[in-house]
Amino acid sequence: MTSYKLTYFNMRGRAELPRYIFAYAGIAFEDRRVEWSDWPSIKKKVLMTNNTLSAFPLGKLPVLEVNGLPLTQSLAIARFLAKEAGLVGNSRLAEAQADALVDTLNDFTLLIPWREDNPQIKTQKIDMLFQSHAPKLLDHLQCHLGDRKWLVGDSDAGGRSAEGRQLHGKHLGQVSPRINRPLPHSWRRLSPCRHLL
Amino acid sequence: MTSYKLTYFNMRGRAELPRYIFAYAGIAFEDRRVEWSDWPSIKKKVLMTNNTLSAFPLGKLPVLEVNGLPLTQSLAIARFLAKEAGLVGNSRLAEAQADALVDTLNDFTLLIPWREDNPQIKTQKIDMLFQSHAPKLLDHLQCHLGDRKWLVGDSDAGGRSAEGRQLHGKHLGQVSPRINRPLPHSWRRLSPCRHLL
Repeated sequence: MTSYKLTYFNMRGRAELPRYIFAYAGIAFEDRRVEWSDWPSIKKKVLMTNNTLSAFPLGKLPVLEVNGLPLTQSLAIARFLAKEAGLVGNSRLAEAQADALVDTLNDFTLLIPWREDNPQIKTQKIDMLFQSHAPKLLDHLQCHLGDRKWLVGDSDAGGRSAEGRQLHGKHLGQVSPRINRPLPHSWRRLSPCRHLL
Repeated sequence: MTSYKLTYFNMRGRAELPRYIFAYAGIAFEDRRVEWSDWPSIKKKVLMTNNTLSAFPLGKLPVLEVNGLPLTQSLAIARFLAKEAGLVGNSRLAEAQADALVDTLNDFTLLIPWREDNPQIKTQKIDMLFQSHAPKLLDHLQCHLGDRKWLVGDSDAGGRSAEGRQLHGKHLGQVSPRINRPLPHSWRRLSPCRHLL
């Protein structure tokens, strides 16, 4: 039986998508949560030992250990787990289209000024982002969706698989209350996942 | 026979990795290059027609059309083509580890201040990036590599596959001349791809 150990800080952040997939698929895993104050010493210790396969090879979290082998990068972890859990489209192209949607939502996430220390400037920047980029993103998702029922694939099964991989849709969830207009059709297609967000 | 049409601007940028994979695998494709001046009207026209499957669903390039179906996001396109071309690791985990390395190099790429208009500030920011982040990145890649021969997989075949997916290594190529110290072992493992960069 494959053993999975997911190490991240004690928060949702970049580990929540892998955790959702584990939960959705009912796969057992060790949910190791590191306190911020402990992380520098843990990281340093690992770097100093210089093992051939360090547990934290890039000095960043999350890391998923699969039978002891470390896998980095939250989205690479999520893509791997989606395959392990059978949450992929019914063709290679559908799988790639789901990947592309996740990357698109991730692009939006990266625009959020996470490291801005000044709370006033941070609020201003986020407001601007939600006024300018968010409606465009929703328009483009709407354009991508057209008259189809699902963002990826033609069947409910394919669509659900794609949406299962798209739990990053929480960022769209954060967007919607700030936009003063009816939600587009594209948002309704993400709504089945809302209870998970 | 599958038809591939790759649309991007007349430059390397985000389309070069897909183009490399096509070239490496000897797969025929239409290399459509759009002039910057034509792009706004092309994009607008497509948005206005509101087709169920717009050719440019996210209003961004590159887009790969596979038998007429559009696929967005350069790295999703590259991952899809790597599979089409058989450039994947010999296990699901090796495939994910190659994915993670590409995402790590992409993270570095995203730190480059592409949109900084002031050339002096841009140079300063890039110098700082190459002095602070680049050596750390190489150290971590070194740590990840350890005494192994390849960054992903244990065999030459697996390694070459991973490196084939890692042509984003050009960014490491840009890093090396700026770092005043011997190149780590990790750099030598990327060097077989240098002639492609």
